[in-house]
Amino acid sequence: MTTTRIHSTRTPAFVEFQASPGHRRPVAAPSNVDVAVIGHSGQVGSALLARLDRTTEAPELPGLQLREGINRSRHLLVGDGSVNQQDRNPGTLSGLGARLLAGGRPAVIVDCTADATLPRHYPEWLRAGIGVVTPNKHGFSGDPELYRSIMQAARKGRAPLNYSATVGAGLPVIDTLKRLRRAGVKPAAITAAVSGTLSHVFTRLSAGQPLSEAVADARHRGFTEPDPLEDLSGRDVARKLVIMLREAGLSQVRVELEPVVPDAWAAALPGQVDTIEALREKDAGWREKIVEAQRDERVWTYLARFDGRTARVGPVEVSRDSAFAGLAGSGNRISIESAEGEAIDIHGPGAGVDVTATAVLADLVDAAFLLTRKG
Amino acid sequence: MTTTRIHSTRTPAFVEFQASPGHRRPVAAPSNVDVAVIGHSGQVGSALLARLDRTTEAPELPGLQLREGINRSRHLLVGDGSVNQQDRNPGTLSGLGARLLAGGRPAVIVDCTADATLPRHYPEWLRAGIGVVTPNKHGFSGDPELYRSIMQAARKGRAPLNYSATVGAGLPVIDTLKRLRRAGVKPAAITAAVSGTLSHVFTRLSAGQPLSEAVADARHRGFTEPDPLEDLSGRDVARKLVIMLREAGLSQVRVELEPVVPDAWAAALPGQVDTIEALREKDAGWREKIVEAQRDERVWTYLARFDGRTARVGPVEVSRDSAFAGLAGSGNRISIESAEGEAIDIHGPGAGVDVTATAVLADLVDAAFLLTRKG
Repeated sequence: MTTTRIHSTRTPAFVEFQASPGHRRPVAAPSNVDVAVIGHSGQVGSALLARLDRTTEAPELPGLQLREGINRSRHLLVGDGSVNQQDRNPGTLSGLGARLLAGGRPAVIVDCTADATLPRHYPEWLRAGIGVVTPNKHGFSGDPELYRSIMQAARKGRAPLNYSATVGAGLPVIDTLKRLRRAGVKPAAITAAVSGTLSHVFTRLSAGQPLSEAVADARHRGFTEPDPLEDLSGRDVARKLVIMLREAGLSQVRVELEPVVPDAWAAALPGQVDTIEALREKDAGWREKIVEAQRDERVWTYLARFDGRTARVGPVEVSRDSAFAGLAGSGNRISIESAEGEAIDIHGPGAGVDVTATAVLADLVDAAFLLTRKG
Repeated sequence: MTTTRIHSTRTPAFVEFQASPGHRRPVAAPSNVDVAVIGHSGQVGSALLARLDRTTEAPELPGLQLREGINRSRHLLVGDGSVNQQDRNPGTLSGLGARLLAGGRPAVIVDCTADATLPRHYPEWLRAGIGVVTPNKHGFSGDPELYRSIMQAARKGRAPLNYSATVGAGLPVIDTLKRLRRAGVKPAAITAAVSGTLSHVFTRLSAGQPLSEAVADARHRGFTEPDPLEDLSGRDVARKLVIMLREAGLSQVRVELEPVVPDAWAAALPGQVDTIEALREKDAGWREKIVEAQRDERVWTYLARFDGRTARVGPVEVSRDSAFAGLAGSGNRISIESAEGEAIDIHGPGAGVDVTATAVLADLVDAAFLLTRKG
């Protein structure tokens, strides 16, 4: 929320500009696009389904028709006016592309899961000309061969592939990096606070709370994964930096990852131990670092950083008045620097069901738009 | 430039993530797209021409082939390896669409001028399927009928129409608003500092400089139009707000415009008077406002603001520690608030030949990409 309050001046001399209607006039009945949602009953999936009818507000855009929903156990089939729900069988997912193609209409599959293996299906769908839209990071941050195969399939199939919600949810990070790459401009540096969870934990640490309590607080607010050690590992942040680097055309850069607590320590914890209890062991060490930094008017936070040569994800000290200090809640901040020393700074909510579902819907409408303008 | 300095921690425990190659592998020889640039010898136009070869760095993208350049007096024709420069004749511009269509290849016309009448040609080009890319605000901020006609022609001709550089140059403002509109989300408020010139002038005013000297300084640095009264009129800022509102699906909102000095006063100045000299008359009035604001720890700046109901462009007082206070040089800042009170903040260089040319090139590559994936 901006804190700017605006006062009108005392000597008004108004001239009026008139904006105009315009967006709301359809030229021709737009075609329909069939949509299948994987993970339709999850948080993002159900928020997406709830938003699907909003797109009818913009009649120049193609209509979106939900045809299938697939979750871990159930298979939702939407016919013309009829809805049929059945148990999922082994062919449900593997036959999805063929079923959509049989409809003869342009189609988009939305992967609303965080499943690590589902992206292996993307190449097959894309090659067949089916669009893929997803907030799932795994296809874009993992195995380089899978990533290459996904990108090539999208080009071969001339199929839209949109994954802007993988970094910063609704913030225009991926698009900005893609535009720079297409214009032949390589970022000189990228600095990114892209974990709302870790920003929250470090803001609490700086306020004097012990690590274990800061993590407990984040878990209590629903900011963490079921096991907070997953957040503290920094792997999610590293995935986002890999996606940003690939998008910027800097795929050859290796990313170093330093977790908040050592991986070896976390791995050695007995299975039945309470994570928060175990973390007390790390309270004193972090307390000392925080106090030491404060003496220099500095604070610790958790950043992804590419400095033009190397890329690193981990805890860092920043000046107390840095824009990267004290980020609250789901706040993300991404700064993309040019060789001329100028930076595009993007700041806003980078996580949360609502902003993610809105970003996925925008990606979906964009994909549908591309598929229908093709013909 | 971000001011964050990053210190590495003392107990590194690195794991390495490997990004991968991927963007640089062409699947098939991409098609070529013919490009005509109007205003090719102007600042943005020549910077664009200098950048055109950079796009060859990304071989999965279509090649861009400059075919024509047109300025006020000359006509540049680029054949296969041959360049022919001749005087412009009355048919040069009106025959442009037909000449491009005769080539039989996908084509894009880039309008690098700030000409108010040129956009009247866009509908004819777009209807014929020729893409239009431009940083020229006039087609999108002026006559509602022309605007509607341009948007409809783009849909009818299925032709790409990209004008992201009209607001904030390379900042992702237009795209962010378009994505929200497509997802059915209306911004609850927009606050925008989109005149580097006026931000600079007001920063100097707050530092104690008289208005006339602040404007002289901005002119000296090349930040102003030939006549600085054009900047002080706020019309350019109002145009940008109209574009943002239309993009957000808020075309019905009227924009009130208050200039820095009254229009009637400016219009009554004798033709031969020096603008800076004349502005001295306004120094005392602005000095008084600045001092009065400072007593309340506030500063004046010049903003475009939509508050959910009304839209206004003009001088405003903001808190001294507001992010909108003290913007320097070409710095723009745009804040798009949601109904939930969250804001997407975008900050960075919003003017200048380099960032504008880069944004126009990104728009051009995007248009070429759309035209070639159609076939």
